[in-house]
Parts: sequence; C-alpha cells; structure tokens
Amino acid sequence: MTAAQFPAKIPGEPDLLAGLGVVGGVGYAPAQWVRPRPALPTQGAVVPEEGRQTEKDRFAAAAAVVGSRLSSRAGMVTGHASEVLAATAALATDKGWQRTVNKLIDQGAPADWAAVQATDTFVAKFEKIGGLMAERTTDLKDVRDRVIAELRGEPEPGVPDPDSPVVLLADDLAPADTAGLRPEVIAGLVTQLGGKTSHTAIIARQLGIPCIVAVGARLVEIADGTPLLVDGDTGDIEPNPDEREAHRRVDEAAVKAERIRAWRGPAQTADGHRVQLLANVQDGAAARKAAAPGIAEGVGLFRTELAFLTAQVEPSLEEQVQVYSEVFEAFRGKKVVVRTLDAGSDKPLAFANMPHEENPSLGVRGMRIALDKPEILTRQLDAIAAAAGEADVEAWVMAPMVSTVSEAEWFAGLCRERGLYPGIMVEVPAIALVADQVLEYVEFFSIGTNDLSQYTMAADRMSPYLANLTDPWQPGVLKLVQLTAEAGKRHGKAVGVCGEAAADPQLACVLIGLGITSLSAAAPALPGVGAQLAAVTMDQCRRAAEAAVSAKGSVQGRDAVAAILAE
Amino acid sequence: MTAAQFPAKIPGEPDLLAGLGVVGGVGYAPAQWVRPRPALPTQGAVVPEEGRQTEKDRFAAAAAVVGSRLSSRAGMVTGHASEVLAATAALATDKGWQRTVNKLIDQGAPADWAAVQATDTFVAKFEKIGGLMAERTTDLKDVRDRVIAELRGEPEPGVPDPDSPVVLLADDLAPADTAGLRPEVIAGLVTQLGGKTSHTAIIARQLGIPCIVAVGARLVEIADGTPLLVDGDTGDIEPNPDEREAHRRVDEAAVKAERIRAWRGPAQTADGHRVQLLANVQDGAAARKAAAPGIAEGVGLFRTELAFLTAQVEPSLEEQVQVYSEVFEAFRGKKVVVRTLDAGSDKPLAFANMPHEENPSLGVRGMRIALDKPEILTRQLDAIAAAAGEADVEAWVMAPMVSTVSEAEWFAGLCRERGLYPGIMVEVPAIALVADQVLEYVEFFSIGTNDLSQYTMAADRMSPYLANLTDPWQPGVLKLVQLTAEAGKRHGKAVGVCGEAAADPQLACVLIGLGITSLSAAAPALPGVGAQLAAVTMDQCRRAAEAAVSAKGSVQGRDAVAAILAE
Repeated sequence: MTAAQFPAKIPGEPDLLAGLGVVGGVGYAPAQWVRPRPALPTQGAVVPEEGRQTEKDRFAAAAAVVGSRLSSRAGMVTGHASEVLAATAALATDKGWQRTVNKLIDQGAPADWAAVQATDTFVAKFEKIGGLMAERTTDLKDVRDRVIAELRGEPEPGVPDPDSPVVLLADDLAPADTAGLRPEVIAGLVTQLGGKTSHTAIIARQLGIPCIVAVGARLVEIADGTPLLVDGDTGDIEPNPDEREAHRRVDEAAVKAERIRAWRGPAQTADGHRVQLLANVQDGAAARKAAAPGIAEGVGLFRTELAFLTAQVEPSLEEQVQVYSEVFEAFRGKKVVVRTLDAGSDKPLAFANMPHEENPSLGVRGMRIALDKPEILTRQLDAIAAAAGEADVEAWVMAPMVSTVSEAEWFAGLCRERGLYPGIMVEVPAIALVADQVLEYVEFFSIGTNDLSQYTMAADRMSPYLANLTDPWQPGVLKLVQLTAEAGKRHGKAVGVCGEAAADPQLACVLIGLGITSLSAAAPALPGVGAQLAAVTMDQCRRAAEAAVSAKGSVQGRDAVAAILAE
Repeated sequence: MTAAQFPAKIPGEPDLLAGLGVVGGVGYAPAQWVRPRPALPTQGAVVPEEGRQTEKDRFAAAAAVVGSRLSSRAGMVTGHASEVLAATAALATDKGWQRTVNKLIDQGAPADWAAVQATDTFVAKFEKIGGLMAERTTDLKDVRDRVIAELRGEPEPGVPDPDSPVVLLADDLAPADTAGLRPEVIAGLVTQLGGKTSHTAIIARQLGIPCIVAVGARLVEIADGTPLLVDGDTGDIEPNPDEREAHRRVDEAAVKAERIRAWRGPAQTADGHRVQLLANVQDGAAARKAAAPGIAEGVGLFRTELAFLTAQVEPSLEEQVQVYSEVFEAFRGKKVVVRTLDAGSDKPLAFANMPHEENPSLGVRGMRIALDKPEILTRQLDAIAAAAGEADVEAWVMAPMVSTVSEAEWFAGLCRERGLYPGIMVEVPAIALVADQVLEYVEFFSIGTNDLSQYTMAADRMSPYLANLTDPWQPGVLKLVQLTAEAGKRHGKAVGVCGEAAADPQLACVLIGLGITSLSAAAPALPGVGAQLAAVTMDQCRRAAEAAVSAKGSVQGRDAVAAILAE
C-alpha cells in the first residue's frame, strides 16, 4: 500500500482525471510528453583491457559536455532555476560518481553500462538517507540519461522547446528539464509523481505556470497532441474539452488573477454583506506582515504554542507577556483572537511529563492538559490579560479541544475572572452537537475545520491514505458547521472559521452562506477569498451552502457550488 | 500524570464520591475500615552473631503459623476463594522468600526487618514482570504484615469479623482478606485501588457482594461507623443518606435482581412495545450459548475478525464458510447480522502488508482496507452468502467504518450482487449526519456506540485518561444516535445499537426512546436489559431520551433518566 496508489479510486466516486494542484491558474493547449529517456543499456560484453582507457575517456568527454551544457543553461536564467541547473551540472562532473564509473570500466564494463550501475549505487545511497537527498535521485538519473544519450550520439533527452504553447506531461521533471522552460510556450505542467515541494512545483510556481502533480499512472492515457484543459486550483485535468468553454475558462482565470491582485478589504459580498476577514499568525513577524492595510481586519487565530514547544521549562509570565505583546502591538485597537496552548503527545511539552499515547490525536491534547495541570493555563491567561491591557487590543481568548459543556463553563470562568472575552474552538464534533448549551457559557465559537474534519470523518488528517476523507467539503462536516452557525445566530454570538476551509475561496462562500460571521486564514490567502466574496451575492452564498450540505459527497458539492457561484 | 489521578475531577462536574462499580447491587450499612496493617519496622540494631539463629527460628515459626492459619481457612471455603487462600498460604512458606530472609538475618538484620527487605526485593521483581505477577504483590505484602504481627505477638491484621452488617473499606484487599468474608455480614466492599480484574472484584463477584473499586484517595474521608449507601451498578457512594431512602434503595435492588433472574424474552416494555434483543458473538461456542431459549432472538453483531487476525495467509473461501456456518447453525431460521472484517494497523492482518500509522484509530481500518484490497471483502461476502444459504438464516451483512455515501453505495452493491441484505455500521460521526442519503442505498444501520463515542468526543476509548469523555451517555453522542434513528424512521428502515451502550439497562431505555429498533449485547447482559425494559413504559423511555439528549453532561443525564425510569 503506497500513498500514491491508495485508494486508486474511491468506489462510486465520479471518475475524474485529477492530481494535486500545486500552482494555480488555468491552461489550455495540446499535450506534449517530455521526450522519452534513452533505453538503458543491458550489461553487454566485457571490454578487453586495452579498450578500457578509451571507454573512460569517452565517458569523461560525455559527462563534460552534459555538465557544460547544463552550466551554460544555468547562466541564461536567474534565481532558483539557475541554482538548480548549476547543482545538476555539478552532479554530471561529480568526482565520486566518475570514480565509481571508472572503477567499473576497469573491471570491464562499457561506459554506458558503468554509468547505469554507478547511478544505481548512488540512488540506493540517497534513498537510504531519505528526505531531500532522496529527491535528488531524479536529478542524478537525469544526468545519467543525458550522458548515455551523448555517448550514443543521440539528441539530448528531455523537454521539447515547442514553437506554440503546449501542456507538458511527464513522469516527474528534473530541475534540468524545468529550468529551461519558457513560460510563454508552456500553458501547464502535469506530472504523474511529485508533491507540493518537488522541483517541478517550485519552479512552476516561480514561472507562474499552472501545475498539477501526483496524478498517478492514469496520466499515460493522454496521448501527445490531445487538447488538455488543466486547472491548477482544483487539480482537474480535462482532455478534449469544448474549445469555446476552454478559452472561456482560461480568460476567466486571468480576470480572476487580476481581480485578486487588485482586491483591497474590508471584505463584502457583491450586494454589500460585510464579512470579517482575519489573519492566522503565530508570532510578531507574521502579525506585522498581516497588519498591512486593506488585508486583515484583525487576528482570528493567534497560535501560542511556539514559546512552549521549544522550552525546556515553562515560559515565565514575563516571557509570555513579551511574546503576546509583540502580536498585540501590530493590531493595536483591533480584535485579536488568542488560542491558548495547543499541545499533545504528538507535539509534547518538554516540561509537562506527557505520556506516550497510542492515538495522540485522540489523546490528552489542547485544553485537556489543563484539566490535569491548570496552572499552565491560568498563568497563560494572566499573561494574555497583562499584554492585552498594555496594547489596548480587543482580546478574545479561546481554548482548543474543549469537549463538554462543563469544560467550556470552567474555561469561561477562568477568562472572566481576568477580564478576558471567552470563547472556545469547535473541533470536537460533540461541541457542535451541544452548541446551544455551550453558548450559555461562552461568548463566541471558532470552528477549526481541520480537526473537526478529522474527527467527523474518523480519519487522521496527516494520513497519506485518507486525504479524500479529511476534506472540509465533506457534507457531514459542513452539517456540523451549519448546526454551530445556527446556534450562534439563536444566541446572537459570533461563529468564525479558522481552518484551511476559510482559505478556499469557494468554500468561504459556502461558510458565509451557512451563517459564519468571520473567516481567518494565512494573510496571503485573504485577497483570493475577498475577491471571490466580492463577486457573489449573499443569495448565491446561501444557495451554495444548501447545495454543499446536501450533496452526495465532497466532489459533487464542489461541482454544484462552482455552478451556483458562476451564475 | 497517572491514570488514577487524571483528571482528579472534571472542572464543573458535580462533586460525587464514586468509583468503578464492579459487582452490581446496593448495600447500606456503617463503614468499617479493614484493621490497619502493622507499622513496618525500621532497620534497627544489628543482631549479634550468637542471636541470629534465634531470629531465624522466630521467623520460621511465625511464617508457619500464618501459613497454616491461611491453609485452614482455605479448607473452610470453596471454589476460587479456597484457591486464592491456598496460594497465599503457599507464599508464607515460600522457600525463596524464606531463604532471602535467612540470608538477611545472617547479615545481622532482625527477623521483622529482614521480612520487610525480602518482601521489597520480591515486590520489585514482580512489578518488573508486570501483569498478573504485579497483582500478586498485594498478597505478598499481606503475608509480610501477618508474619510481622505474629512476630510481635499482635492480633492478626486485616478484615474484622463483625457481628452485624458493615460496608468494608480498604486501600485494596488481599485474597486472604476477601476469602474469609461472610457475605451475610458484608453489605458492600469499597476500595481505593484495584480494577475490574483485581482479587477484590473477583471474590466479591463470587460472593455476590456489591463492590466498588478505584475510588481514589478521597475514600479516607469516610470514618468508621459512617452510614454508607453503596451502589455497585453505578459506582456511587453516599455517606449519611436518608435512612428510609437507603432502605428503599436496598429493597428495590433486591427486587430488581430477582426480576433479572426471572426474566425471559422476547423483550417488551411494560405497555407492550416490542424490542428486539440480539446477541454479540464471535464464534460458534458463543453463538450456541446465546441461542438458549428466552434470551436472544438472533445475533446482532457477529464479529468475523477471529479467523483473519490469527492467520498468516488470508483464510480460504472454504475455511470462512465453515466458521460462518457454525454461528449460523446455532440460529437456524433467525436473523444474524454479520459484520465484515474489522482490522486496522492496531490489529493488523499479517497477510495484508499494513503500514504503521500515527493514529491507528483514525487510520485505514474496517472497510477502508477493502477500498485498496477489494478481493478480501468480496471473498468474505461470497463465503457469507454460501454459509447463509446452507443454514437458512436471515443473513444481514454490514461493513464497519464506512465514512461516505459513496462507500455505502459501493458496499451495498457488492452485497446485493450476492443476494445479501446490506447495511452499515454507524461509527463515523459523518454517517449519522448524512444518514438520510446513506439510507437511499442500504437497508439498515447498526450504531457502534463505542467507536461513535470515541470519534464524537475525539477521545481514544482505550485511553486511561479520558474515560469520562468516551461515555455513550455524553449528550453529543446521543444526539447523533437520535439523528440516525430519526432518519431510519423516515425511511422505514431498522436502526440497531450494538455497542456497550446496549448492555446498560437504563441507557437501553434511552436508546429505545430515541427510536432505536433493536439492541445487541453480550448474552449475559440481555436479561438485565430485558427486565429493565419490562419495568417501564414507552412514554417513560421517550421522556428519558429527551432528558438524556438535552442534559448538560453525562452525569446529569444519568441522574435525570434514573428519576424518570423510577417513576
């Protein structure tokens, strides 16, 4: 079972060709596979001793040519692209690799077979080390293939340099492939393998080319020349689309990109319904960036773990006051929602003697720690109150992982004793189900859609196997959001969302339609959300919400919502 | 953080003195602490060489007296009580222990100090081994104390032999204490420590004495002579209760015990509302026991893991048919609900190459395995269909851990192709929230309250720290049961419960009041449930359900329901 193949397809789900969209935008052009790699040689006859020096010379010459080609290409581009090309060039002339090749030739291997074997040895080493080194194996294999093609006098394998725009398809792209790309002729990039941080993704992002990775084996179904519509926002790939529709989608995406660039807050829908957009921050630096005018109206989620997770002893009151003050300073006079310490046995506190747990995500996490060690919480609340007083902010304080009415009542009491405005996170499904009772004790809710999804779907949000389940578009998750928002309305209290859901422009419309009163996300995501809200009416949001909650599944919900918001 | 102390008390929860009720029934009598253990000696002066043989003789004589007293007491009782007394007697004259004591005396230790040190050595060894050996440390310390008392010429420490009934209180009871108990003068047994399988619990069960363990340090608040009402069903301990109310409770419990003994199915409420009571089984032996007339009407949960979890290769179709046939045979012509394979990375299949997961309970469990490896599921369904045909049972088949409408649709299709009646477990909160849509594809639901509670409360049900959260009485959990039952009613489809909740007589009434149509539990629990249902009307069940769902918490819900059902 591997992440990429599991599950190949959810039984019963619509059969779409899709991957992980890693660079946004829409592209439309004929497909073009990256030119195939040379067939690798098999062992071949033993080279007699007198021929071996010739083989070594041939190899050295080929490696030198490949290296210098890559180097000169590095000189023609700039920034990260240049760096990766230079690094790949260095691999071609790497002394260790050459030594291994020469040793194999000394034992009788032809140059091309020696290159294959030496590469295999290094790939095995890199993979054993794992992480970033494992990712370099693609580069090394790329160098090998170029050298073998050069040894055979064949043209350099890899990326074509087309005259008119194409969507490039590949297993995975080596830096040497992507670095020479001219964005004006590449309408999109799609790979079978790769991930959010692969070279392909990094360089596509730098060049602004829509990019989809991790499509899987089905990508080979697409033949050269097939017209392809690729959507880097959704990860969808549509072969042979209606041509007019495809051009419309491309134009629309361009308009949208411009609209996002031009957007300034405060946010509202096309018919003037105000929506509070807030920023997620975890330190002073992020807070100062988010405080730039026209973006966030305040902080919707100030994560306070940083000072605790790195500490060997509990941070003192004074240390905490200083950390909180830095964030409050950036939003003087505005609203800042502080989340109290969220740790657990998966991110343990060095000073709190936390036990090993079989299922840390279902364990003693968040406020549950405070039930056993209340002094950590009360000291933190003291520090928040002191810092908020100094900076004159509207300090809202909320606890993570509250699970019962009584826990919420207890936390609210501790806050009120210190003059703080109390709320709780809605992450545990039970809280959404007893929301009315909880709101008798607290003043606001903030829904953490990431954890709420994980528990509602009973699927670890870090699991590579279950990503299709831990999706806030799942109707069951949205139903809990709805129940929570409706309870908030009945009590006249604020219900925000601060998970990744709030950063998804279309889902943001759904949330507003469900009755959510504020959205908080990383500051760079806010203009996209704000621009989408500005383009739709409150009625569209309500209809989108109804469609998403009553959809058969997350895929069907997304489609229905896209149609309603595009009206 | 230890299990026993965490959390000392949920902030905001009512402040009750309570423990873990391990033997049911209600007792009312003055408290009587078990006679205190002798104060242990400190090191003392070195015994001169010429006195050492005398010390060894004194020790041997004392140990022999203690051993023979315990042996003769073992002869006066029968069964398990006799066995544990004999085992403890053997500890007193254990050669290894005596050798260690003599060696210490040879080095100059007085006999009592040598006994203390030798015991410490063995206790450390036992605790290192853990498990059952660790539980024997209580017995060894008991023997040590008796020998020390004997060496000092003091009366034997331990349990008093009162003339009139008492509720015995103790830190923990050694077998030697509990084995001599006369049930006619012991109205209840309450200990600070212990667990479901401690000696205290085992012997109390044998003698039919209401018993509560794991009360914790607060038990010392109770002084000798305090009138105590103890409820072994709920674990509640009430000091100085109203005397008439206490007698009423005791009488009521006696009537209830008699009612349970006399109960015969099929189950119905006092006003004739029929309730289907079914048995949970996992093999032929359990099925044959459960099929005794007048108890279970069929099987509500046939767990099929057994044959899979012990196998190195997947069981063949024939092997599976044989296992299923054995259970079906016992319920020929009746309803048997089969749950397909429920494994996961915490109970892995040796033949399925399952990955390690950070949070196995939120991982690739239950039917999720079949999304990757459908042939395991389809072969199992083939075997169920074949076995059901032969035995002529009404075979209902359900999948565990279904999380989306599409998954349910897919599973139902596989069942229908084989002529099987398809349903799913409701364990993932999302399913309860999209129940109406799921019921368009499946014919029945069975709610697994253990897992549903764990996910709804986001608390590992195996965690020793979070037992108060993973409680099916939590109103949020019951709300999901309600939503599911209501959807079932709208679609005219059966919704059963097969978790531990169904074995709790009062909660069973709540479930029926919520609209649940069948209850499945271990067969020995069914008469208790049936007798409770027979004592209440459907209107009481409905009002109990309303009270439990709208309660502030599980404790308040239990209290409100008890009051309504006692009307």
